[in-house]
Amino acid sequence: MWGIELRTNSEISLARQIFLSLRKRILTGDILPGELLPSTRELAKGLGTSRNTVCEAYDMLLTEGFIISRQGAPSMVTEGLHMIPGNAGTTQDTKKEQPAIHWNFKTGQPDLSLFPWSSWSQMVHRALNTLPVHQLEYSGPKGYEPLCREISKWLMRSRSMEVNPEDIFITSGATQAFYLLVDILYKKNRPFALENPSHPGIRTVINDRNYPLCFMPVDRQGADVSWIKKMDLSAVYVTPSHQFPLGGILPAVRRASLIRLAAEKDYYIIEDDYDSEYRYSGSPVTPLYSMDPSRVIYVGTFSKTLFPALRIGFAVLPKELQKKWRHFRNYLDVQNPVLEQIALTEFLKIRKMDRHVHHMCRVYAKKRETLLSAAKEAFGSQISAWGDESGLHVALELPEIKFGKDFIPDCRKNGIQIQTISQYCSDENCHTDKLLLGYGHLNEKEIQDGIAALKSLIDASI
Amino acid sequence: MWGIELRTNSEISLARQIFLSLRKRILTGDILPGELLPSTRELAKGLGTSRNTVCEAYDMLLTEGFIISRQGAPSMVTEGLHMIPGNAGTTQDTKKEQPAIHWNFKTGQPDLSLFPWSSWSQMVHRALNTLPVHQLEYSGPKGYEPLCREISKWLMRSRSMEVNPEDIFITSGATQAFYLLVDILYKKNRPFALENPSHPGIRTVINDRNYPLCFMPVDRQGADVSWIKKMDLSAVYVTPSHQFPLGGILPAVRRASLIRLAAEKDYYIIEDDYDSEYRYSGSPVTPLYSMDPSRVIYVGTFSKTLFPALRIGFAVLPKELQKKWRHFRNYLDVQNPVLEQIALTEFLKIRKMDRHVHHMCRVYAKKRETLLSAAKEAFGSQISAWGDESGLHVALELPEIKFGKDFIPDCRKNGIQIQTISQYCSDENCHTDKLLLGYGHLNEKEIQDGIAALKSLIDASI
Repeated sequence: MWGIELRTNSEISLARQIFLSLRKRILTGDILPGELLPSTRELAKGLGTSRNTVCEAYDMLLTEGFIISRQGAPSMVTEGLHMIPGNAGTTQDTKKEQPAIHWNFKTGQPDLSLFPWSSWSQMVHRALNTLPVHQLEYSGPKGYEPLCREISKWLMRSRSMEVNPEDIFITSGATQAFYLLVDILYKKNRPFALENPSHPGIRTVINDRNYPLCFMPVDRQGADVSWIKKMDLSAVYVTPSHQFPLGGILPAVRRASLIRLAAEKDYYIIEDDYDSEYRYSGSPVTPLYSMDPSRVIYVGTFSKTLFPALRIGFAVLPKELQKKWRHFRNYLDVQNPVLEQIALTEFLKIRKMDRHVHHMCRVYAKKRETLLSAAKEAFGSQISAWGDESGLHVALELPEIKFGKDFIPDCRKNGIQIQTISQYCSDENCHTDKLLLGYGHLNEKEIQDGIAALKSLIDASI
Repeated sequence: MWGIELRTNSEISLARQIFLSLRKRILTGDILPGELLPSTRELAKGLGTSRNTVCEAYDMLLTEGFIISRQGAPSMVTEGLHMIPGNAGTTQDTKKEQPAIHWNFKTGQPDLSLFPWSSWSQMVHRALNTLPVHQLEYSGPKGYEPLCREISKWLMRSRSMEVNPEDIFITSGATQAFYLLVDILYKKNRPFALENPSHPGIRTVINDRNYPLCFMPVDRQGADVSWIKKMDLSAVYVTPSHQFPLGGILPAVRRASLIRLAAEKDYYIIEDDYDSEYRYSGSPVTPLYSMDPSRVIYVGTFSKTLFPALRIGFAVLPKELQKKWRHFRNYLDVQNPVLEQIALTEFLKIRKMDRHVHHMCRVYAKKRETLLSAAKEAFGSQISAWGDESGLHVALELPEIKFGKDFIPDCRKNGIQIQTISQYCSDENCHTDKLLLGYGHLNEKEIQDGIAALKSLIDASI
């Protein structure tokens, strides 16, 4: 009957099935504009269903304007409806079959097998039990205030940083902070200065916006800030506590000169402190922020200390930028979800965080040692590890080798995922003798076997 | 001794206190570049602490480049460090004292007092107990796959929408979807077309980027699409199931013509379906998406059905846009947190969602009825409610009154928060006889009292 087939075991009501079926036939032109539909009584009889069901279906057609109905007259299909729907695109991403990866030296990956999940669950349970109803509403772009207060205390305990909780803005990871800052800080035709090499995150956002960029070379101590002495910039992005990826600690003289430059030329410095909790000899490095909170935007994250899928980071913002930040964040995604923020507040408050970081520090120090001694054994004493003894990765210099474009695909074919430092440079001819190895997530055996596999591959390709 | 005062009951170690104190004096110029520090033995004696403690402090100064140390020679302050830190800005937002709000007719606010928190907690508990470790890592910008599958089924159950889970991308609320889409869809010098009036969300993002805009007038049936017939656009944004804020359902003829235009002129239509679950007479309206999935980007949210601070929404994307979307989201904030996504998956799977929406539908219908009868009683039968019987707000036309600029501040002074429709228009002389009243979060008494207060205020000002 009218091309309608009813399924009684469907999740969709009979009325809706009739509606959908007629609607489809109208849109494809099977039923023409101006054509009359059967009366509800007639169709109900034909389909063996109740007249109410058909009336309901006709009501739906009427509401959405597919048919016109005048009292007493039969329902008629509206004019001007026919259209041929386009093809739902079929450009599937053609995924190539990739060989399995046995040793993945990716960076920035904490060892999640040691995450204190039961403590964390407890915090979430508590948050569920105590969360007041009004916290389910929008609460604005700043973040959960008690969390800002606990982060302020944590920054003091872990880095001797004095930060007013009022200046802490919660973000969906550090990534979001950089994304927002690019828009907030850009001044027309003034470039952003980045380290070379650097993480592709903020660089990609700046490139996507077609904003200009310039680079500071990096040596064993971090960025050489003398390169931007005379420049009018939108902002400078640096990783002073542990240069990414080369690992240097920016010396106090360069810090002071960077801050003097920023004040003189009137721009801000973005300080990315992505993993300075993990330092394996000596005390934590003091952030650049402490030198001049009015010029430095400090960005921190819990992705490395807790877990990446938590999506909580924060930015410490000078007062002048806070209004603009609130506006942009409000229209970006309003705020972070509330539950994890409450759980994290408690996790910090009862010092579970301190214990976890303390524990992981020892674990990662051991992994680093394993990696370095395996590398020394494999490649001999001419190799050298750049940078400070900290973090979840190391840059290894193998002085007599040049890692070209083919090296990474060659590794992949042999089950090794690895990066070269030159990948992170603006010019691929920089630092061509260095590899970047992340080890946070690997166990000792994986590290040793991975280095051995790397050694065989390099030997075979020489 | 050297201006150092040690506190033994501090959370900061003695060594760190010495370090911080010396560092501060170096930076402010109290200790000059080239000046020699006392020997560790000497300082330890002076402070009454162990020599190890002082050595540790000097090591910190050395690591961060504040002092230079050569074997045998005393430690010397580095040259080039002196700087005067800027003032941490003091431009506090001067918040004016606002009178208390007794009746807040804000829109888009669900009744959170009826949210089934214990069911939701159960889902989160289950998620905590079953979440596999690898889910703590980054899992990419698409979203949790089982959630995409459950949303696909939910869309079929609630709206008869057929959607491939592969095309569903989880977002941090609908807000984030619009934010991303503006960047993804913009074509140079081609405006975005919005409804007039419309929600300020996407309009603000487009304005912030300085992209051009144009408007379609809205009548009782929704947007008049004939206004954009000849235009080359970047995209069109519409609310076809329940025009925001006027409430019309876009008729099938206009829908078909919109889709024909988009195909002819090669642009996409953004369909914002922000509350069509709540329809109080008849069945849910079928989304525009179902007419042509290759031209329509459907955006949905769980902020109204569950709670805003959950921050979960989604976009259904044509294949051609998915690569660009992945790129942008990846550099915006990577992904949503995982825990709530898993909880929501279960909430949908065991149909708690269906029950909750069904229940709330009856609750909101009642509130709407209360509001309309209170309004009729207060303002007489000449008032009329625009739009469809659905959603969490209603646009009321009071034909003989013109609500000017002073009306909203006047209301505030009298404890009433309300919007006029002209606030949502590009031109403040449109729809000046209409008020916008959100009622989702108010109870019957609040609604009745609020309308009575509104009535007194309007009477007094005539």
